Amino acid sequence: MDFPVDTPAVLVDLDVAERNIARHQAQCAARGLDNRPHIKTHKLPLLALRQIQAGAVGITCQKVSEAEAMVDGLVGLLDQPLDLLITYNILGAAKLARLRALDGRCRLSVVADSLAVIDGLGAAFADSTTPLGVLVECDTGAGRCGVASPAAALALAQSIHASAGLRFRGLMTYPPTGGAEAADRFLAEAKALIEEAGLGVEILSSGGSPDMMAAGAGGVVTEYRAGTYIYMDRSLVARGVAGWGDCALRVIATVVSVPSENRAIIDAGSKVLTSDLFGLSGFGAVLGRPDLAIDQLSEEHGRLVCQGPIGLRVGDRLAIVPNHACVVTNMMDAIHLTRGGRYLGQTAVVARGRVL
Amino acid sequence: MDFPVDTPAVLVDLDVAERNIARHQAQCAARGLDNRPHIKTHKLPLLALRQIQAGAVGITCQKVSEAEAMVDGLVGLLDQPLDLLITYNILGAAKLARLRALDGRCRLSVVADSLAVIDGLGAAFADSTTPLGVLVECDTGAGRCGVASPAAALALAQSIHASAGLRFRGLMTYPPTGGAEAADRFLAEAKALIEEAGLGVEILSSGGSPDMMAAGAGGVVTEYRAGTYIYMDRSLVARGVAGWGDCALRVIATVVSVPSENRAIIDAGSKVLTSDLFGLSGFGAVLGRPDLAIDQLSEEHGRLVCQGPIGLRVGDRLAIVPNHACVVTNMMDAIHLTRGGRYLGQTAVVARGRVL
Repeated sequence: MDFPVDTPAVLVDLDVAERNIARHQAQCAARGLDNRPHIKTHKLPLLALRQIQAGAVGITCQKVSEAEAMVDGLVGLLDQPLDLLITYNILGAAKLARLRALDGRCRLSVVADSLAVIDGLGAAFADSTTPLGVLVECDTGAGRCGVASPAAALALAQSIHASAGLRFRGLMTYPPTGGAEAADRFLAEAKALIEEAGLGVEILSSGGSPDMMAAGAGGVVTEYRAGTYIYMDRSLVARGVAGWGDCALRVIATVVSVPSENRAIIDAGSKVLTSDLFGLSGFGAVLGRPDLAIDQLSEEHGRLVCQGPIGLRVGDRLAIVPNHACVVTNMMDAIHLTRGGRYLGQTAVVARGRVL
Repeated sequence: MDFPVDTPAVLVDLDVAERNIARHQAQCAARGLDNRPHIKTHKLPLLALRQIQAGAVGITCQKVSEAEAMVDGLVGLLDQPLDLLITYNILGAAKLARLRALDGRCRLSVVADSLAVIDGLGAAFADSTTPLGVLVECDTGAGRCGVASPAAALALAQSIHASAGLRFRGLMTYPPTGGAEAADRFLAEAKALIEEAGLGVEILSSGGSPDMMAAGAGGVVTEYRAGTYIYMDRSLVARGVAGWGDCALRVIATVVSVPSENRAIIDAGSKVLTSDLFGLSGFGAVLGRPDLAIDQLSEEHGRLVCQGPIGLRVGDRLAIVPNHACVVTNMMDAIHLTRGGRYLGQTAVVARGRVL
């Protein structure tokens, strides 16, 4: 906390992040799973590179603009083409043109859960010499995107196969936490149907950091997409997936006011910690002070409360593990890197704010 | 909604914003209040300029870096020096140096609620030829920053008065919604104490958009700081302060999936709408579709649900009034300006992400 940074600041300890990368990679390898980390957590080409160097088969992005940031940021750094999966329905002329412009700059796949999406992708890639890989997104219980039945997955697989510029590659799902078994049943049934229809199913892709300790336990999925594992956060500590020492990302904040014996105000509010509660009580954990609760945020103020005397002075610095690491990196133009106790410098959060 | 923008996008209708500016300015004038709008809502020098041209005495910022953005963004555009109040305890060598660097570039005031803050400000401005204006922040019920009693306000006023580089200017509070009367009582009592001690109290500054319709009703405060009034939002509509037609800011989103009869997914998630609920149910209001609820957000997905058939198709565009306008502008590198039905272009959100 004695690093030369003004607050509020986000610090990432590279030693801890690299240990998390290695542990998760080893676990994927032990289960025979391809590891395709989601870059939404770090938003940094430099950490995507570490993940690939550690054995990841490629990366996951959510938006075309994130993919652009990663392709641009990794140019010249890889020995093989970047393998990139965008787990989002890409729609509309502007995004399809940008997607097509990535053609040839990486090995690109996307997902689709409707004919409307497949039609758009097919038109955009009709004259491409390298067909666009497409996976069918399946709703295995999360109630977000995805086809609702294995039969619907088969129908879309056939539509993708019938499109000149597209290549059907497999199935993708983002199951709810605790939903791996139901996801396995859905994916296995859909795979069987599609194979019966004469199509190959190369990839069965699932994801989610909360369930990563049991990833692939059912022997069905071939690939796993996790994001938060690289930094961990308070939500994963609460789920027993990580300890505080595994949390690579910390928010450093300064006490700006101690207006009463049981209350202090810090300079990290919702513009840094965000309002994400993730089912938890309070907006983050103050390291070394389990007696403190961050019970209220406004944009630039965080309120700390305590049953007893709070024992803080104006100017004190605190380290906070946020509830949700991914959203915090989206709030910062730059974060600071450390290695153990050593300060390395700051780096731009390259894919921050990439919502298109 | 037929504007040439890719989604998700934030659109601001300048006609509506200017109407809101004029209405609030007229109301402040009618009550004899100085209007000092908070720029945290729009984060745009171009709209701060409109507010000043309409009669605002100056602007409010929360952070030194926001003040820098405004001073830089308004350079050469004003006939008089920019009058700028930072309603935050400024602490630490880095921020104090930046604050001092603004000295002479604007007419600058800040707040303080402790001796530690006053000591830092005093040291930084000890040799300034233009003393820094300082207001004492008072906690009149919000439980955030601020001294807890009129007697404590007097003590700090005297400390400010005794500092060579500082000038005591008055009292500032951010009362809780509905707390204007209690705030008036606190401020009036503190003012009397301070005047008895021989110091002048030039400014009594209060704020908050939810209570702006009754701003200054008690005849105590001299200045009002409101931010959200320029754009309005769902929270202010819910409080009866605005109608939908007064909402200048809208998020435009595209339906990317309609996985079931009662559910649709849009491309605006918490990275645009944020997780701020503000006590409301759902994450925004879909204009023209009061039957829809945005019941769940992930970072890039918003989930719409409906009791009956949802009647949306993949590719449809929707206009959403967010719960809280201020936090939404912090998520976007640029927003799009319109005037009535005409598209004007996009503009960078200059003070976005200014947390230092």
